[in-house]
This record gives sequence, C-alpha cells and structure tokens, in this order.
Amino acid sequence: MLEPKSSCIAIDAMGSDKGPAEIVAATKLAVEKVPDLRRVILVGDESILKPLLEKEGLSSHPDISVFHASEVITMDDKPLVALKKKKDASMLRAIELVKNGDASCVVSCGNTGSLMAAGTIKLRTLDGVDRPALATVMPRKRGHFVLIDAGANPTAKAEHLVHNAVLGSDYCRLVLGKKDPKVGLMTIGTEEGKGTDLVNQAHTLLKRVDGHQINYAGLIEGFQTFEEGVDVVVCDGFTGNILLKACESLFMLLKGFVTEEIQANILRKMGYLLSKGAFDAIKTQLNPERYGGAPLLGLKGNVLKAHGSSNKEAIMNAIRIANEIVSNELNRHILEDIEKANNLIYNAE
Amino acid sequence: MLEPKSSCIAIDAMGSDKGPAEIVAATKLAVEKVPDLRRVILVGDESILKPLLEKEGLSSHPDISVFHASEVITMDDKPLVALKKKKDASMLRAIELVKNGDASCVVSCGNTGSLMAAGTIKLRTLDGVDRPALATVMPRKRGHFVLIDAGANPTAKAEHLVHNAVLGSDYCRLVLGKKDPKVGLMTIGTEEGKGTDLVNQAHTLLKRVDGHQINYAGLIEGFQTFEEGVDVVVCDGFTGNILLKACESLFMLLKGFVTEEIQANILRKMGYLLSKGAFDAIKTQLNPERYGGAPLLGLKGNVLKAHGSSNKEAIMNAIRIANEIVSNELNRHILEDIEKANNLIYNAE
Repeated sequence: MLEPKSSCIAIDAMGSDKGPAEIVAATKLAVEKVPDLRRVILVGDESILKPLLEKEGLSSHPDISVFHASEVITMDDKPLVALKKKKDASMLRAIELVKNGDASCVVSCGNTGSLMAAGTIKLRTLDGVDRPALATVMPRKRGHFVLIDAGANPTAKAEHLVHNAVLGSDYCRLVLGKKDPKVGLMTIGTEEGKGTDLVNQAHTLLKRVDGHQINYAGLIEGFQTFEEGVDVVVCDGFTGNILLKACESLFMLLKGFVTEEIQANILRKMGYLLSKGAFDAIKTQLNPERYGGAPLLGLKGNVLKAHGSSNKEAIMNAIRIANEIVSNELNRHILEDIEKANNLIYNAE
Repeated sequence: MLEPKSSCIAIDAMGSDKGPAEIVAATKLAVEKVPDLRRVILVGDESILKPLLEKEGLSSHPDISVFHASEVITMDDKPLVALKKKKDASMLRAIELVKNGDASCVVSCGNTGSLMAAGTIKLRTLDGVDRPALATVMPRKRGHFVLIDAGANPTAKAEHLVHNAVLGSDYCRLVLGKKDPKVGLMTIGTEEGKGTDLVNQAHTLLKRVDGHQINYAGLIEGFQTFEEGVDVVVCDGFTGNILLKACESLFMLLKGFVTEEIQANILRKMGYLLSKGAFDAIKTQLNPERYGGAPLLGLKGNVLKAHGSSNKEAIMNAIRIANEIVSNELNRHILEDIEKANNLIYNAE
C-alpha cells in the first residue's frame, strides 16, 4: 500500500515568503473549495499558527490540525546543513508525517534545495527509480505542457531521462488530462547523432519505450519549447532549471519594459486602459497560480513544491493538486509504468 | 600576421531565407553606410548575382566583386554531408576566401551547422583554443549582454568554458564597448559545489583567470540571465543553445498572445493604437537586427553567422560588425588573452 487511505495534506506552514498567515488563509480556501479533501495538517510553530487559525474562525475545524515544529528552514539555509542542524524544522516534520503514513502529501513553499534533499533522503526513491525529478506545468499557445526535470537531478544518466519521460507522462495524464501525452527530448539540432552522448543514448532508450508507457515524439529543439508539438518536455535537471529560470527572467524583463513604456505618457496610459482586457486575458493564460505547484516525482511519498511567493490562491491550488495526486494514486501508476519501462530499456538486448 | 591588411568581407550571397536580392540590397547599404569598409565579395551564382547588382546600379562599383560558386547549402542539408558533396557551395567558397587571405571575414545567413562545421574544419582553431564558440548579443533591462556559447560546442570541458569567458570578454569589449566586462558562469544554485562537475571545475579555473584576462563575477542562475549583473554569460553550447532558443520561443508565444488579444475587439484595437509608441519602443530595445550577427570565435579567420531570415538592415549590421571585428583585430586580442589565460589555468599547480 503506497498511499494512506485518506487524502491528508501536510503543509509546511512556515515556508512561505508571505508568512504563515497566507498559508492559514490558503488552508481556509482549500477546506471550503477543494473537493474530497479530507484533512490538512499545518506544520509549524503552534504559538503562531493557533492565533492565526482563531482569527480565521478555524480553531475547531474538524479537518484542520496543527503539528508543532519549532524551527524554520530559510531561503538562505544550505540544504544539507539545514537537514542536519534544524531537525525540528517545519519542512522536515511535514515530510516525516508523509514518511510515517500520517499524511499523504507534503506541500511546501520553502527552500527548494532543502525540500528536494530532505524529500529524497527521508522518503527514498520508488523501486526502479534512481533519482527524483521536479515537474512543472508551463503555458503554451493553447493549453499547457509539463517540463521535467526542472532541477532535481543536474547530472542525469540516459535511463534517468527515460524515467523523467515516464514520470512526466503520468503527471501530464493526471494534471492536464491528456490520455496519451506526446513526449519530446530536448536537444540542439534534431538530426540523430547531433546532440550530446547523453541525449543520443536516451533517444535510443526512449524509442524502446515508445508505444508502451510513453508516446515518444522524438527530439525537439529549444525553439519548439512553447509550440504545440509535445505535451511533456524532457531534459536533465541542469538544462531544465536554466531553461525555466531564463524564461522567467525574460518574462520579467518584458513585463518591466511594458510597465515602463506604458507609463511614459498620458496617451500610452489611456491606450493601455482601453486595451487592458487583452493584457488581463494574457495574464490569465499565463497564470502560474493555476497549477500552483511542482511535484518532486519518483519518491515513496508525495512532495509538492509551491513557489516561495505564492499567494493564498496559488497555495490553495497546490493543495488541490496534492489532493488529486493522492486520490488518483499517481505513485501507483508511476510504479507500474517504471517497472514496465525498465523491462524494456534494460532487457532489450 | 593573422588578418589581411584590408577589411574585405566575403558574403555567402546564396544563404539567406530571403534570397540573394536581400544580400545585394544589404551590400548596397553597407558600402554606403559602413565606415572604413574596403571591399565586399559576393560569393554565389554569378548568373543570378550580376543582374541583381545591375538592377541596384552596382555593376561597376569599385568595392564590390562577385566570386562565382555554383552550389548552395540549404537549411535541410546535413552539415558534414554538405561539406563533402557540395564542394562548390557559396558558403564553403566564402570560407576558403578567408582561409587563403583573400577576404578577412565571412558573413553567412545560411545553415548554422554547416557554417560551424566548415568554419572549424577549413580554418582550424587558434593556437591555444580547442573548440570554437558562438557568441550572441542579447537585450536586457539597460543595454545588452553577450551569451557564449550559443551552440558550437555542446560537449564542453572545463577549460573550454574558460576559453568561452575569454572569447566572450574580448568580443564584449569590441561590440558593446565595455572595458572590463563582468563574466558570469551559468549554473543551478549558486552555492559552490551545487552544479555539475563541469561547472565546478570551470568555476575553479575561472577564479584563477579573474583579475587578469577576465573580470569573473562568479556563478549565476537562470533567473539572472536578463538582469544587469553580468555582461558575459558563459555556458556550454548545449545549455546556451537551448536557453537562447527557448527564450526566442517564449518571445514568439508572448508576441502571438498580444497580437491575438489586441485584435479581439475594437476597444482593444483603439487602445493598442494609442499605446503603440510603447510597443514600438520595446521593439527597438529588443531589436535583434542591431547586432545582426553571431561570430564563431576562436578560429584562425573570422566567421559571422547572421540569422537566416535577416533583412537587409540586419545583414548590413552584420557586415558592419564583421568590419569592426577585422579592423579592431579581435583575433590578435583573443590570441594574446588565450595564451595568458592558458598559462594561468594549466600552470597554476
């Protein structure tokens, strides 16, 4: 049995840039709005959390409880040092609740490096998986796609990229509702033999799994990232992290340009007000809060990373996705698919 | 003597997506506008080029000549196959003119893979450089920065990344006029020891060269790409190519969103017209044509790649930059700096 029966989400209540009040407000939203959510455990300093719950009128809510943890891992903490020195940190206690079967998924807005390290060390990887991978949902022309790995495993081997393809496909089926998501392997130049050895080896292995656990569409290049060609973009964690963050950086640059130039004179400001609907529509389309979390896939237990600056809606969405991951038994699918994929890649010749 | 005395640019006249007429029009602009440009050799089918020159009134221009080449490497040609089979291709003949000292720089809008392969094989690398690197100028909040390597060497070693830092710094001094450009090494997580072995080794070597041939600012992450922290962003060709093309892909996505949403109703269209100045200003700031070329650095001879779809202004700018590369003796600087940097990285202990 991989998942506990009830879908109980443990939240690292101290890990948000916006403070624990935002987490408590998100919890209120979640118990009101997320269907089939059984219970939320707020993990953190109870002397802070209990007054916040009282303020929101949630003190005696049957679906919300507090698990006390006295320490907090900050954004400046070095992951492995924090793991050793802050044993009573809210993030670590929340992961332990999952490990012990008291919760079925941990949600944290905290230090990504610490969450990945602690998740991997405390929960261990699923049978057949060597390394976990971070999956993130990104917008494209119509709809969304899954980028995997966004930074968990920077030094991937070929079989890890195949595992990323399987993990990403299973997550894509769940979160984007695609029955047979198309998988692309990121490289430079799509001629066979052009990229790195890693990519070429992974390409060979992916073709073996194609038509079984994944629908492999082949190699893709960077300029296809936001096109509609594939639903799962597979890369190593080094490339994926840089791709993701460079795109975020470009987006911030362009947003800054628009804001600055629109303010330059009254005519432009008026024009912007008239066309504001267009920009609001784009904002909705790009809204990172809709899929407000990136799961760390491939572990014996569910871990969802939410953005450090997530607001209550984004955290509520992360709780919603955590709940879907649990109730749809994502890890059961992953375990089955990884086993079959491993048979294809390891026993082919 | 690395450079021929006169600055004579050989243009692959058949390599543009827009056809040879655009190249001839760009040549006309260049001989009118680029200061100190001595001569342009148009390399390609003379039965096509000569009538085009006549049409532009350039038939007997003293600074323009035609070098006949009967074949064309297309975007679909595989680089190494094209090199073997199309010996009389305009791109290859243009590179040979540089090799033989009849021209001082080749400019091509053609197949990037072929240009990199042919440039490397025919010209060979400069003493002390193992692999060439593609440098590209990108916009940021205020000004521009150099990204290197944008795709020439996907399987870099640590010393190649140091060479990229030196090549990128020398090019940044020339093209962006920065005296002491700050260099950042792209990684994930800026704590020492967090990235890949390649990054960690390169980081150690870069610190040895810091304060000598380069001004090393340290590790940077993807989200810093378009910030103002560094003037030269160093990465391997695999990462750099994906970063560059994914950002282009995102930009196209956002541009498409704006165009589509603005057209949605008359109010938005009117608003857009009023605020159009803002978008024109942004377009100017992002204008890829201003630095219309990416040099392949580290070769015994100058090679400048222009975008396949470059218009005449972009190609003229590429010719202008090619001319600056030659007249400022970029390769002499590179040769000196690489030798000194190699002494620091190889003889340190």
